Amino acid sequence: MRMAVILRAAVLVLLGSLLVPSGGHGAATVEVRNEIKSMGANVKSIIDYLTSGKGKHQVYDRLAKFTDTFGNRLAGTANLENAIDYMLDTMKTDGLDNVHGERAQVPLWVRGKESATLLEPRNQNLAMMGLGTSVGTSAEGITAEVLVVRSFDELHNRSKEARGKIIVYNQVWVSYGISVAYRSHGASEAAKVGAVAALIRSVTPFSINSPHTGVQDYEDGVEKVPAACITVEDAEMLDRMATRGTKIVVNVKMEAKNHGLVWSRNTVAEIKGSTYPDQVVLVSGHLDSWDVGQGAMDDGGGAFISWQALSAIHHLGLRPKRTLRAVLWTGEEYGGYGSQKYYEDHQNESNNMNIVMESDIGTFQPVGFRFTGSSKAKGIVSEIMQYMQPFNASKVIDGADGTDIEWWFNKHVPGGSLENQNEKYFYYHHSNGDTMTVQDPTEMDLCATLWAVVAYCLAEMDEMLPR
Amino acid sequence: MRMAVILRAAVLVLLGSLLVPSGGHGAATVEVRNEIKSMGANVKSIIDYLTSGKGKHQVYDRLAKFTDTFGNRLAGTANLENAIDYMLDTMKTDGLDNVHGERAQVPLWVRGKESATLLEPRNQNLAMMGLGTSVGTSAEGITAEVLVVRSFDELHNRSKEARGKIIVYNQVWVSYGISVAYRSHGASEAAKVGAVAALIRSVTPFSINSPHTGVQDYEDGVEKVPAACITVEDAEMLDRMATRGTKIVVNVKMEAKNHGLVWSRNTVAEIKGSTYPDQVVLVSGHLDSWDVGQGAMDDGGGAFISWQALSAIHHLGLRPKRTLRAVLWTGEEYGGYGSQKYYEDHQNESNNMNIVMESDIGTFQPVGFRFTGSSKAKGIVSEIMQYMQPFNASKVIDGADGTDIEWWFNKHVPGGSLENQNEKYFYYHHSNGDTMTVQDPTEMDLCATLWAVVAYCLAEMDEMLPR
Repeated sequence: MRMAVILRAAVLVLLGSLLVPSGGHGAATVEVRNEIKSMGANVKSIIDYLTSGKGKHQVYDRLAKFTDTFGNRLAGTANLENAIDYMLDTMKTDGLDNVHGERAQVPLWVRGKESATLLEPRNQNLAMMGLGTSVGTSAEGITAEVLVVRSFDELHNRSKEARGKIIVYNQVWVSYGISVAYRSHGASEAAKVGAVAALIRSVTPFSINSPHTGVQDYEDGVEKVPAACITVEDAEMLDRMATRGTKIVVNVKMEAKNHGLVWSRNTVAEIKGSTYPDQVVLVSGHLDSWDVGQGAMDDGGGAFISWQALSAIHHLGLRPKRTLRAVLWTGEEYGGYGSQKYYEDHQNESNNMNIVMESDIGTFQPVGFRFTGSSKAKGIVSEIMQYMQPFNASKVIDGADGTDIEWWFNKHVPGGSLENQNEKYFYYHHSNGDTMTVQDPTEMDLCATLWAVVAYCLAEMDEMLPR
Repeated sequence: MRMAVILRAAVLVLLGSLLVPSGGHGAATVEVRNEIKSMGANVKSIIDYLTSGKGKHQVYDRLAKFTDTFGNRLAGTANLENAIDYMLDTMKTDGLDNVHGERAQVPLWVRGKESATLLEPRNQNLAMMGLGTSVGTSAEGITAEVLVVRSFDELHNRSKEARGKIIVYNQVWVSYGISVAYRSHGASEAAKVGAVAALIRSVTPFSINSPHTGVQDYEDGVEKVPAACITVEDAEMLDRMATRGTKIVVNVKMEAKNHGLVWSRNTVAEIKGSTYPDQVVLVSGHLDSWDVGQGAMDDGGGAFISWQALSAIHHLGLRPKRTLRAVLWTGEEYGGYGSQKYYEDHQNESNNMNIVMESDIGTFQPVGFRFTGSSKAKGIVSEIMQYMQPFNASKVIDGADGTDIEWWFNKHVPGGSLENQNEKYFYYHHSNGDTMTVQDPTEMDLCATLWAVVAYCLAEMDEMLPR
């Protein structure tokens, strides 16, 4: 998941609430309720398959094999393309329809070797990770005195002290949506006041000296200076030193380099609809990750429950009226490159797009479904979600999350995402801690179940969701 | 804190309960209660000084300055000796009595450069940390196939597969006291079945791909093979790969080297007793740490609340009847080298040693006091601990913890340690996450308060604790 998601989520919650007519949520009609009830036997077979049948722990095992085989999968790398080839082969072997890649351009940024070394007041290596799209340094690196600030306001107030310095941002963690601004804009804000590099406290509420990477955005017309994240611990230490009046000197070396755009692919698989094959229920997650950890949480989990939803329905011999389409996006971490291209290529389908769903904020214990759409549509979704009540996962919350699905919201296509107990999500996010260890087989089964049940019912109903 | 503490704690709890006569805990006599009550004004001045007066946040600030200045402090290094010099100077400047170092020999082990690299099924760096006292490898390292086991039993059952292999232990976390056996004995157990190195899952209940070091013990007469910890995440990944039947090959390089014993010092400061200067209340923590993180938790916190207790009492102009002695041990992490020498040199004082106290399991929110001693003595301590009731920290629990104080228990000297909310202690323990970030100024004030109140009252009472 990239930076802007949470901010967007806030907007979407607002949007969602605006879409609800005063007087409260629309409730499903008796006809719709009965229609959803009539799917009970098939829904039960999906639930049984994924929680106690042949599909039990399958999504975890599949994701584990995938991430253990390929590790992390940075957009633009041969490793991601190999992983995409594997997914295409595997989903074909699984028996899904119309398995294919769709080309999209993504940035190629290569991290290379990198280091940050405290030289004064004492010599110590600082754990760091360069930020995606950052420029590098010369081979000898940048050696400069440090100015520690806790906010952009402080940087601006102390702008006269900033020239020639390395800016260390020790912003307090508020929330990802708020705190990520320092990662996104820290370098350009530093450059504007004449600083030579930016070291940003990792955007996380908890750390075991763990640096967290992510994308950063250079502002047009502003000098590009190197940007990296350091750990919460080191940012706090440098802040304490500065507060004591200690002179701090740091050397930053980064081989990082931007290589422009290269071709990658979104990975697509379907179960063709029996009655309305042109109408689509789209489930998704992104296959690319940062170049650290295994990308098992962000977003292996979302991609694999999307495959698993189709896989379960296919292996049960079910073929709903509408087409079920799983899309595993590329280039999400740089800002939805794959999904934007997909939208451009497919926006002519928007009248037939019943719902676009993405899971990209964890596949921990599921709680419910985030939904963006009309009040009437929400009533229908809420009715479907009653099937998740035995798992305490039937909540319906306003405002779907997802960098890769938001393009469709302009066309009033309903959207959905997975609400889950992801309180520790940002402990691991974009760090070496994003591995299979954070995933739980039973929790993943329930996420896949929720995903499959919602997708199946929406694809099987007589009517598309009202807009 | 080193490995054996928790096991010892279990024994001490047992011992503690044996010391309690049937019929329950001894209660303090009315005279003793009145005597403790009569100290109320002085105790209040100590509490006020440390929680809202001149001493507020002082222990945190002092520890932060110390750890930011010296970083971690491995026994045997010049850095630890410089840190000891700093402490001697600083405690003299603080006005304490009889500030001096007492020589003790400690091991010198130098980590050097080290790496573990997965070569098959794919190339990937594994985060690792060599274990203290481990031998190193040749410059090209050891390259061998991996055998993953989850227990010593499994290793023994599969001993025929072990020859020439690198053993990866993926033991489940049970508790530190139980799980640490793999760190302590993993190398020798591996060598006994012909393996060439041991990689042990870090002994922690939680990880962000964080390796945790610590000491290991070679068994006499068994070949010494290199031993290192890897992360929970990587141990689990290798286990999954092995379970799938994948061939795993790893290269381990370690420059680690043992250089025998070198001289270090225990750091001592006192407030000489006004009436019984030969009788001693000893408070302590250890100043050495592992060579990672800042050693702020293990055991900067314990060392600094011990200084702080004396500092507060001194600056309030209080001088209790008995001598208060703070000892900051050296060489604890290798197994109480400093404290053993201290005991050998001072055991003639054991009849005058009123209590030996050590804080070495965290200085988080305090809960109470762990005590080893007679039932009657426990009654007195419990009465004193009533002063901590306003802070919900008045519990008295059987069985004091502390590698450095246990030597005295053979002589029936009572012992005490700090019970605190240290549920996350092993998240950080012996890792780069052991920094000032885990410390909280207010919590540290309360720990220092508890430490000072107990020490002051025991030093001020007419009688020594009954044995």
